[in-house]
Amino acid sequence: MAILVLLALLLVVAPVNAAEEEWRMTDTDNTAVLILDSGVVIIELNPEFAPETVAQFKRLLREGFYDGLGFYRVIDGFVAQGGDGSDIGERSDEPTIRAEFEREWTDDLRFTPAQEPDLYAPETGFVDGFAVARDSESGAIWLTHCPGTVAMARGNDPHSSRTDFYIVIGQAPRYLDRNLSVFGRVVHGMEHVQGIRRGLASKGGIIEDPAEQSVIRSARLAADLPTEERPNVLVRNSNSDAFATMLEARRHREAEFFHHKPPLVLDVCQVPNSGRQE
Amino acid sequence: MAILVLLALLLVVAPVNAAEEEWRMTDTDNTAVLILDSGVVIIELNPEFAPETVAQFKRLLREGFYDGLGFYRVIDGFVAQGGDGSDIGERSDEPTIRAEFEREWTDDLRFTPAQEPDLYAPETGFVDGFAVARDSESGAIWLTHCPGTVAMARGNDPHSSRTDFYIVIGQAPRYLDRNLSVFGRVVHGMEHVQGIRRGLASKGGIIEDPAEQSVIRSARLAADLPTEERPNVLVRNSNSDAFATMLEARRHREAEFFHHKPPLVLDVCQVPNSGRQE
Repeated sequence: MAILVLLALLLVVAPVNAAEEEWRMTDTDNTAVLILDSGVVIIELNPEFAPETVAQFKRLLREGFYDGLGFYRVIDGFVAQGGDGSDIGERSDEPTIRAEFEREWTDDLRFTPAQEPDLYAPETGFVDGFAVARDSESGAIWLTHCPGTVAMARGNDPHSSRTDFYIVIGQAPRYLDRNLSVFGRVVHGMEHVQGIRRGLASKGGIIEDPAEQSVIRSARLAADLPTEERPNVLVRNSNSDAFATMLEARRHREAEFFHHKPPLVLDVCQVPNSGRQE
Repeated sequence: MAILVLLALLLVVAPVNAAEEEWRMTDTDNTAVLILDSGVVIIELNPEFAPETVAQFKRLLREGFYDGLGFYRVIDGFVAQGGDGSDIGERSDEPTIRAEFEREWTDDLRFTPAQEPDLYAPETGFVDGFAVARDSESGAIWLTHCPGTVAMARGNDPHSSRTDFYIVIGQAPRYLDRNLSVFGRVVHGMEHVQGIRRGLASKGGIIEDPAEQSVIRSARLAADLPTEERPNVLVRNSNSDAFATMLEARRHREAEFFHHKPPLVLDVCQVPNSGRQE
């Protein structure tokens, strides 16, 4: 009898701990393909953390809303923000989206720990490849602002996001965590995001003349593209043993190169997050 | 009598606390001007923390050593490394430089605190505008790896730096602190550094074909340029009240925008470090 229970347990537990592949394909229904002047940028969307934001973003992609619009607020080392300019006064007719700054922890989430405590949160880690932070006491978990993080711009009203989004292009502005609706991450072509034309710091990065802005030639959902144009992007599977091993190797630097052994800590935003295209 | 003493004290103390300007001009004798394909990049050198490294780098600038050389190891989100390739096997005849990973704290250093404790060090702050970390117990202080940090490449031997250098282009790789000789920081044109062509992650960022590399058209010490070509770069003076006020405003986010008040911490690498050209 004991053996039968053990076998049953193994059948349930085994697939979770052993069989996970190091890489997984992104879901084309939650993958956005942006063609910029500088190159192709692929964004993985996260409906588990930002369902309403992702739903509206996907509708806008389907309508070709972003095609031809520019990045009008670009601050080197901080963010590149694009869209129709609704964040700087020219309100579009699109509906506003309810704030999705954080969500409640639920046991279906698969969390791979990175650092505890972190400078900005009690704990950081990864859920489905996305860098997250959580507070076990309050039960809140949120997507963090790291390089490549994609989030909705807003005004002072937390519920005022509509269409315009930004991509983090510099040192993680973690103080923005839990204050904006993060809904995606760049998984391919981050170097092309870095090619977006900057505004002047003295003007808060605003580029007024559309002719001077880097332009989104097209932005589509991967699932809506013809099969032959659809990118196959592989990203690291944060539920795999290989991922946990990679985190551990970044925390414990064992190489001979390290004359001074670094402290045993890990910055959740300093973990490679780029995928690869097949 | 007490009034005279007080006046005398004021005369000594006043210039330190009050009269510091918000911006200071960089010393042309410690300012490097790199002309890349993508634009002009200005680097402030730090002989206080890396005297031998700066001395050799300045000599190489004077000899035109870097002119025409490329960035041969460029990993998006990490570093852009350039020079004659001596770090990947093709040893130049230039002498190696003694490791300058950290220095002893001395009381002539003017330290403006940022964060205590930091994730990677007991304390962080700024000295002469450079992001630093220190350990008061051991008395060590070092320049940290932040975006824009310039440091010498090396092999496993700590004292094996010669000519090749890297610029940090992504999330601060703080685990490299105290392991490499940081000797400068980009104070202008970081967006042009971001324009440097990346290598493939699968090849460790190595770009073997020189024709595919972004090239250093010229690299000179500002002091050696004709007066009319010499850039006047203003950088934030980290000894000014304005700087301390700016740090405090970044630690305490008071704006109405902050629906969720961020924790009262400050990432030393998430403080704007770009200068402005007159």
